[in-house]
Amino acid sequence: MAIHPNSTTIPASNLRAWLQGVFIRLSFSESDAQLATDVLMLADLRGIDSHGVARLSGYIRLIEAGRINPKPNLQFTQRKKATGHLDADGAIGLVSAPFAMQKAIEMTHECGSGWVGISNSNHFGIAAYHAMMALEHNYIGFSTTNASPLVAPAGGAERMLGTNPICVAIPAGEESAFVLDMATAAAANGKLEIAERVGKPIPEGWALTKDGENTADASALKQGGLLLPLGSDADHGAHKGYGLGAWVDIFSGVLNGGNFGPWAPPFVSFLQPRADQPGKGLGHFVGCWDIDGFRELSDFQRDMDLWIRRFKATTPINPNQPVLIPGEPELAQFNHRQTHGIPLVDAVVNDLITVGESLQHPFNP
Amino acid sequence: MAIHPNSTTIPASNLRAWLQGVFIRLSFSESDAQLATDVLMLADLRGIDSHGVARLSGYIRLIEAGRINPKPNLQFTQRKKATGHLDADGAIGLVSAPFAMQKAIEMTHECGSGWVGISNSNHFGIAAYHAMMALEHNYIGFSTTNASPLVAPAGGAERMLGTNPICVAIPAGEESAFVLDMATAAAANGKLEIAERVGKPIPEGWALTKDGENTADASALKQGGLLLPLGSDADHGAHKGYGLGAWVDIFSGVLNGGNFGPWAPPFVSFLQPRADQPGKGLGHFVGCWDIDGFRELSDFQRDMDLWIRRFKATTPINPNQPVLIPGEPELAQFNHRQTHGIPLVDAVVNDLITVGESLQHPFNP
Repeated sequence: MAIHPNSTTIPASNLRAWLQGVFIRLSFSESDAQLATDVLMLADLRGIDSHGVARLSGYIRLIEAGRINPKPNLQFTQRKKATGHLDADGAIGLVSAPFAMQKAIEMTHECGSGWVGISNSNHFGIAAYHAMMALEHNYIGFSTTNASPLVAPAGGAERMLGTNPICVAIPAGEESAFVLDMATAAAANGKLEIAERVGKPIPEGWALTKDGENTADASALKQGGLLLPLGSDADHGAHKGYGLGAWVDIFSGVLNGGNFGPWAPPFVSFLQPRADQPGKGLGHFVGCWDIDGFRELSDFQRDMDLWIRRFKATTPINPNQPVLIPGEPELAQFNHRQTHGIPLVDAVVNDLITVGESLQHPFNP
Repeated sequence: MAIHPNSTTIPASNLRAWLQGVFIRLSFSESDAQLATDVLMLADLRGIDSHGVARLSGYIRLIEAGRINPKPNLQFTQRKKATGHLDADGAIGLVSAPFAMQKAIEMTHECGSGWVGISNSNHFGIAAYHAMMALEHNYIGFSTTNASPLVAPAGGAERMLGTNPICVAIPAGEESAFVLDMATAAAANGKLEIAERVGKPIPEGWALTKDGENTADASALKQGGLLLPLGSDADHGAHKGYGLGAWVDIFSGVLNGGNFGPWAPPFVSFLQPRADQPGKGLGHFVGCWDIDGFRELSDFQRDMDLWIRRFKATTPINPNQPVLIPGEPELAQFNHRQTHGIPLVDAVVNDLITVGESLQHPFNP
């Protein structure tokens, strides 16, 4: 946290209790308030600061603008034994995606795999929350979402895709779960904001100007610029990052009747969704596989532990920087913050104080 | 094909007929010979020259070494309604993966989704063949495989992963299918070979020396070097490419009882598999989703066509290079080569002539 010298550390339990009260005051049902709190808390605990309480005031503005429905009537339709669709009725994704994942888990009990596509939803927080719901059943979880368009396709000079994450959560035996939760852009928005805050240029391959020129300007996005897909340029496989982001967009939007591509609704309340949207809201896609559907769980667990231990023992380039397992840094953060509290930068603290005042639910960090 | 000045173009039907005869002479059953031929032909037709008949002599050496079983007894076990496992009995993946995908399709008829993990297999050709089998049912197809270790994890200086491809094939309405078939390395092996052949340096971010240093040497791999994962370096998301390759490795190997990581068997016959292998052969993972399991097919087709048309209309950086849809260049090659024949470089032609002589089945290009 060295780049955030002005921060306040707050015990996780205090933040959790306050957050739950916020959602109740926003007219969420008790169980939805609990769920939304859980999802945001997991982001802050895992160190994904961009997706935790830092988003709260943005969500509230969307509720005030009537674009997030705090009392949704979730409509689930099971269309096949192992697949179904959820119309989220304008819910926040923090609530709709766990609901859908629970349905996918139930279908997996029955079939060994289960999948739910979600439309008419909104931002779902960290993808990892939803995929990781599978872990307690020793299932493998999968989740994707599309998002406000910021990323150019390979060779394009137009915002067509969100940072569209893919998450895969795989349980192990004695070792901790493998949790890959990655944006399909070369660098997420938040990395540019950090560079801008400390006045540093950004590496080539992160962003383009609005005219499609390379840029080292950390404020490029604010000037109408574009994020680049994973792979960054033609030589380094930008078509692959574009292909992954496109896959996520199609699965989250086209497959479920949500919006997609440049029509994905903007996250910020001051930008209006386009009038010509082809679908309803944002979309997500969640599901799981039962390991026992492929081999004995105990055999898998033994081999997965071996996989993790062998990869951790990879000869490192720098002897002081061992090779990490996806999810390992986030778990270390989780363990630390669970005990020592969650550091919030001043801008977020002030934001939460303002939220608390407006809801007559004071935030006392 | 400008980089291959010395090539011979052969009609697709001639190559197909000859290939089928090769597999018959290698003791494949008639239907397996047809299948293996089909998979190799699709690679050559789609312009994936590295995965077509250029691999044939390598396969034959593995058959001669007893590492590919030309007369396998494929053992499929349906473990759940929507999942199952295939022990491929040492088969070539050209045969085992389509067999497994057919089972996945049948489970998808029943459940809306179906998945098969495969172990005890060998190289499966292009991932696209298997995933694209889903398209004729208007299903979405998915396929992965692990492969001989060549790629370093992010921060590692050791060959731990194959170029581990992910393929997703999504049907459309009037438009052609979306087919993403991508290695999870920054650049596949074949790109280094092409650079070496024409005496050019490779871009930074493709490979490391065996000591983990950056290199522009196109022969780096031959000197014990490493391929880099998609993303190339820490600044550009190498941990994401590593995460994707790791996901593929776990799904192809660990989930099915195949080998994984550094234990994945080498493709070349002059390198022996390790004595301490934890699993059986190479592994693959295939499956599909029925679009109708999420929304009406006709609605999806309309929106998928819109998705494709809108992405093709993206403002391009270079007006002469429009944004492409994944699979579009390969389809253009397919259409051209289907009509005008398949160009084979002299090295491959000579290889096939030698194969033909040894099998008393002359290859006459």
